[in-house]
Amino acid sequence: MQNEDPIRDPHELLESLDNLHPSDIAYSLKKIENESVDDFFYILKNLNEEVLGQVLLELPDNLREAAYNELSAEKLTEAVDELESDDATDIIQEIEEIDIDKAKEIYEGLEEEDRKDIDWLKRYEEDEAGAYMQTELFSAKISETIGESIKRLKHAKAEAELENIHQVFVTNDEKSLIASIPLEDLIIFDFDKTYESILNEAEEFKYKPFKVSDDTHIDEVAKNVEQYDLSVVAVVGYQDILMGRITSDDILDVIEQNATEQIYQLAGVHEDFEHEEKVINTAKKRAIWLFVNLGTAILASLVIGLFDKTIQAYVALAILMPIVASMGGNAGTQTLAVMVRQLALGDIELENAKDAVKKEVLISLINGLLFAVIMGLIAWFWFDQKLLGLVIGTSMIVNLFSAGFFGASIPLFLKKLNIDPAVGSTVLLTTVTDIVGFFSFLMLAKVILL
Amino acid sequence: MQNEDPIRDPHELLESLDNLHPSDIAYSLKKIENESVDDFFYILKNLNEEVLGQVLLELPDNLREAAYNELSAEKLTEAVDELESDDATDIIQEIEEIDIDKAKEIYEGLEEEDRKDIDWLKRYEEDEAGAYMQTELFSAKISETIGESIKRLKHAKAEAELENIHQVFVTNDEKSLIASIPLEDLIIFDFDKTYESILNEAEEFKYKPFKVSDDTHIDEVAKNVEQYDLSVVAVVGYQDILMGRITSDDILDVIEQNATEQIYQLAGVHEDFEHEEKVINTAKKRAIWLFVNLGTAILASLVIGLFDKTIQAYVALAILMPIVASMGGNAGTQTLAVMVRQLALGDIELENAKDAVKKEVLISLINGLLFAVIMGLIAWFWFDQKLLGLVIGTSMIVNLFSAGFFGASIPLFLKKLNIDPAVGSTVLLTTVTDIVGFFSFLMLAKVILL
Repeated sequence: MQNEDPIRDPHELLESLDNLHPSDIAYSLKKIENESVDDFFYILKNLNEEVLGQVLLELPDNLREAAYNELSAEKLTEAVDELESDDATDIIQEIEEIDIDKAKEIYEGLEEEDRKDIDWLKRYEEDEAGAYMQTELFSAKISETIGESIKRLKHAKAEAELENIHQVFVTNDEKSLIASIPLEDLIIFDFDKTYESILNEAEEFKYKPFKVSDDTHIDEVAKNVEQYDLSVVAVVGYQDILMGRITSDDILDVIEQNATEQIYQLAGVHEDFEHEEKVINTAKKRAIWLFVNLGTAILASLVIGLFDKTIQAYVALAILMPIVASMGGNAGTQTLAVMVRQLALGDIELENAKDAVKKEVLISLINGLLFAVIMGLIAWFWFDQKLLGLVIGTSMIVNLFSAGFFGASIPLFLKKLNIDPAVGSTVLLTTVTDIVGFFSFLMLAKVILL
Repeated sequence: MQNEDPIRDPHELLESLDNLHPSDIAYSLKKIENESVDDFFYILKNLNEEVLGQVLLELPDNLREAAYNELSAEKLTEAVDELESDDATDIIQEIEEIDIDKAKEIYEGLEEEDRKDIDWLKRYEEDEAGAYMQTELFSAKISETIGESIKRLKHAKAEAELENIHQVFVTNDEKSLIASIPLEDLIIFDFDKTYESILNEAEEFKYKPFKVSDDTHIDEVAKNVEQYDLSVVAVVGYQDILMGRITSDDILDVIEQNATEQIYQLAGVHEDFEHEEKVINTAKKRAIWLFVNLGTAILASLVIGLFDKTIQAYVALAILMPIVASMGGNAGTQTLAVMVRQLALGDIELENAKDAVKKEVLISLINGLLFAVIMGLIAWFWFDQKLLGLVIGTSMIVNLFSAGFFGASIPLFLKKLNIDPAVGSTVLLTTVTDIVGFFSFLMLAKVILL
């Protein structure tokens, strides 16, 4: 594989630039920056404009920002000029946040056509398909011959305007997208034929294009790419006018990003605020979640407070009660993770969710019984009191049952309300398992032991 | 987008089969099976062999297994014959697990070349690149002209032997892979030229192929596909002999699967056992994790047990102590999720991990101070005792600090031991936060209050 060790020596890196993928250059630059910021900037300034933009895109946020400040507007303009429209737009928008004048200077240094593309792409919300598309693509009019369109491709490739082309998008006279022909088919056709005749001869649905509207949510696009094993999706606007394309490498990033978000949300972390320059801002965002958790912990404590006399009479209850809550919390988390993930993957849908809930409740009942016996025996021998074993055993069944039921229901409930099931479900669940755990254990103790 | 509502009427589905993607047929079949198993089998048997295999692959595990039992060996042989080698191998291996004779009959119904491919692919471990590759690809000898190779492509496509071709892999006389030329370049070359002359004219690294050895771990392949934005990777064996290719849609599945595993591991769930037919098997696997958790919960209880006299004297301690443990657990989980994920994504590496640990400790100290004040005041007013506020506040700082430190260190420690940081880190962390939480709180209480 290409994935070699980073080059840590600045001179060696400078000499090897031509053989390296931008991603490898960025990786080496990261290491070099650790040793010397000057070396980092020196190499950056010596990168040629063809790779500079790509390298910038692969750098971590903080280094990219440093580069925006250090590099001249001219150098940045050259770099942006080499990028595809979606990447160019991203970089200009990032520079705008740091230095609006510099961003303007770069923007004005671009050709008019590129400026128009950027103006257009900037209008999209960050989760819309339009924000992910590149406007550079290979298209042909239906009346054209294949040979004519390939001549255009040749020219565009010589000018380095097109890359990663896997198909030709065929449009009608109204510029609406009507077909997508993979290059593997195109290359074996007679180049003198027109697209019209090719399409007339083909089976009806053979070249039906996979397309999304420019305002489609990117998660929806990702789902389709996965489901239909696509490498490219066309993006269309009003009346199916062809506007751009989204390639599978962008979709890979979306899927990786969504998985990160889901893991973070389950743990009470906001992905957006984890890359803040200032630690205090990250801490603040995390504190919000901890604050909610504090509220629910106090609720659980209030429940314990109801039984202060019982605890005073049997201090063993204070010793054992965290076990019930902890087991409920863990069993519930297992169920929750499975439900949240399977809802996200579409393996569970609202309409067939009953079976999933039943299964989870059954699992938690089985384990409730198992741990009721184990923990009942442990408590009995530990404190030499049979009834205490009965209390904790019964409470274990109650709490694991409710953990399974609520662990399965809470994500479904959130989903029904159109809330992301990963958000807030953990805190709702632990509130339930803590309160049910403490209450059932102490209440049973009060009734049975006193 | 193509993603239409499922067709729930069996007759309507039968009539629309020609216009539907296999993935959509599978989706509709899932719905129909909910209503009537007979209808489900009836439609399956009426699918033509060109789509049957694809549809089977898209069905959920339990329905696919039912289909293997219901469909005849002849029908299954026809379906397998249409599939690419990696998918064909998967299906035969699945049928082997249910009915070894049927699997053998299907295998023997295939052409010799396909049988050889399957024999070969079966040798790979399930996480090796070889297990993911398809042997169907478009290759050319260096001495060939482009035109000759395209004739071969045309023939292979007419026979439906090749699909999703994005490049030609060029091999030398020893069958070693030496170049990969995208079709977008191939289509603009002079077809009369040989590959040798094309490669001689090109820049040195322009057509350097992205390749992995057949025993490379698939996660490593996925990382490379992401890093270099690839759509296809070549798989090579001894002396770079070209063996197959892995396409980006397979990598998408790997990434999605890895994210699921990571979420499950953090929650103490084994992905492999979540799809068991029998609930008892899933329950058993989850019980193992709960059992470990029970052990650590008992450890925490033993710590509480050390302070039974203190608790008897101040029952308020029993009421408040779950708050300290809960806050530590949550703060630690935040840190843990961030570390585990960033290690997985390569954003944090062992060599620069110190900065990440420092950051996490700083965040947890900031929030420790914040919640020390908040919870100190609450405890003070709740129980009308200033010193109790001091106790819980101090304990909050200690516990959130250790949550940050251990939440960041445990994944790194596991990684250093070459253990997946997602596995077991949650249970290790909560053991620490529970014990530190209870001990610091009760010890401080004993010293300050008594």
